Amino acid sequence: MEKQEQLYEGKAKRVYRTSNPDVYWIEYKDDATAFNGEKKGTITGKGELNNRISSIFFTMLKEKGIENHFVEQLSNHEQLVRVVEIIPLEVVVRNVAAGSLAKRLGFEEGTVLAHPIVEFYYKDDALGDPLVNDAHIKLLGIASEEDVRYLEELGLKVNEVLRPYLAERKVMLIDFKLEFGRTRDGKIILADEISPDTCRFWDAETKEKLDKDRFRRDLGNVEEAYQEMLRRIGGKEHV
Amino acid sequence: MEKQEQLYEGKAKRVYRTSNPDVYWIEYKDDATAFNGEKKGTITGKGELNNRISSIFFTMLKEKGIENHFVEQLSNHEQLVRVVEIIPLEVVVRNVAAGSLAKRLGFEEGTVLAHPIVEFYYKDDALGDPLVNDAHIKLLGIASEEDVRYLEELGLKVNEVLRPYLAERKVMLIDFKLEFGRTRDGKIILADEISPDTCRFWDAETKEKLDKDRFRRDLGNVEEAYQEMLRRIGGKEHV
Repeated sequence: MEKQEQLYEGKAKRVYRTSNPDVYWIEYKDDATAFNGEKKGTITGKGELNNRISSIFFTMLKEKGIENHFVEQLSNHEQLVRVVEIIPLEVVVRNVAAGSLAKRLGFEEGTVLAHPIVEFYYKDDALGDPLVNDAHIKLLGIASEEDVRYLEELGLKVNEVLRPYLAERKVMLIDFKLEFGRTRDGKIILADEISPDTCRFWDAETKEKLDKDRFRRDLGNVEEAYQEMLRRIGGKEHV
Repeated sequence: MEKQEQLYEGKAKRVYRTSNPDVYWIEYKDDATAFNGEKKGTITGKGELNNRISSIFFTMLKEKGIENHFVEQLSNHEQLVRVVEIIPLEVVVRNVAAGSLAKRLGFEEGTVLAHPIVEFYYKDDALGDPLVNDAHIKLLGIASEEDVRYLEELGLKVNEVLRPYLAERKVMLIDFKLEFGRTRDGKIILADEISPDTCRFWDAETKEKLDKDRFRRDLGNVEEAYQEMLRRIGGKEHV
């Protein structure tokens, strides 16, 4: 496979075309942003850590029957993925109140929810990725009602795999954000990444945050937290 | 019927017990608030106008088979209503993009929606009445999924009555907020008020705003707009 021209540079990744029209080449960056880009910074080693962490999660999810875009890890900060058309929805699954849910509903952060819930946010930087309901999604023409139910189902399924997997590794899965894409033949599969950038991970015992909240909230030891997450899920300490 | 002690004073109304345990006595006030109470003011005659406008709407809706709490208009600024336990959800129905929907989805104000939509907001001043989805409502224990579907259905039904009724009177029904309550025997019925405080009304030809946006946005002629709405739906000019 040959890396060709860059198609897109996002906040955390660069996407390149390859000699295979069905495959993209992804480069993970160290750049970190939060609060819809209002806070910017760099987390040394993040690109490598997220690439390795996400590769492990996507490989494991594929083994558990959850189809996704991951093809293979190429290097510490690069991976190959299947070309999909990203559905502009952030599918957020929550087990424990934190972040915007705690704020929206007035729940104390750390409150375990009676049952996991799914939320949809419209991926639009200019609008600040607003929460949307089924009617909004239909109005925007993003996905049919059937697709929305399917995304919800897939989100909960990923949670049912990830939550116990992480619990065994002494990590509480607080919440996470997924993105899905449509393949050329119209199938919806899991895409994007699963990493401390897109999940809230707490140490099961100490409740220490092992995710991007360390960056968002200036808690320090950001890189160390990402490294600890890689270690917990079986990646080697550092290359 | 005898008016007894005051039970509650809200932003726009006072509620009194009566000698009949199934009936409350409501007094409409001239006080106006907007943006979750951040903007405060008085609209001369608003209490009277909203009481009279809402009485006309609720009477008409009852005739059209939409059960509601309205019992009778007592005076210019007073009415009797059935006692219900208010469900803490604002049920918002929209035909045309305006206000927070326009902002949330990036629609130009005035864009006619492909179909009417329903949104739910959690009635909680401290939280700023946040938009909630079905999962949030379930989590908050406010209403069952079945009840949420019923509220949605009732909201759309009210729209199907109000929209043509107003169109005949050269008024575009842009959007409106409803509240519902449970009667002692557990039935869900329409409650609260329907007025320029809770709806967006535009003159069908000039698109002039005939509602609280005149107060929210300092457009002037607020009382005149409320009076014009009363006139359009057949109330006498002024008492």
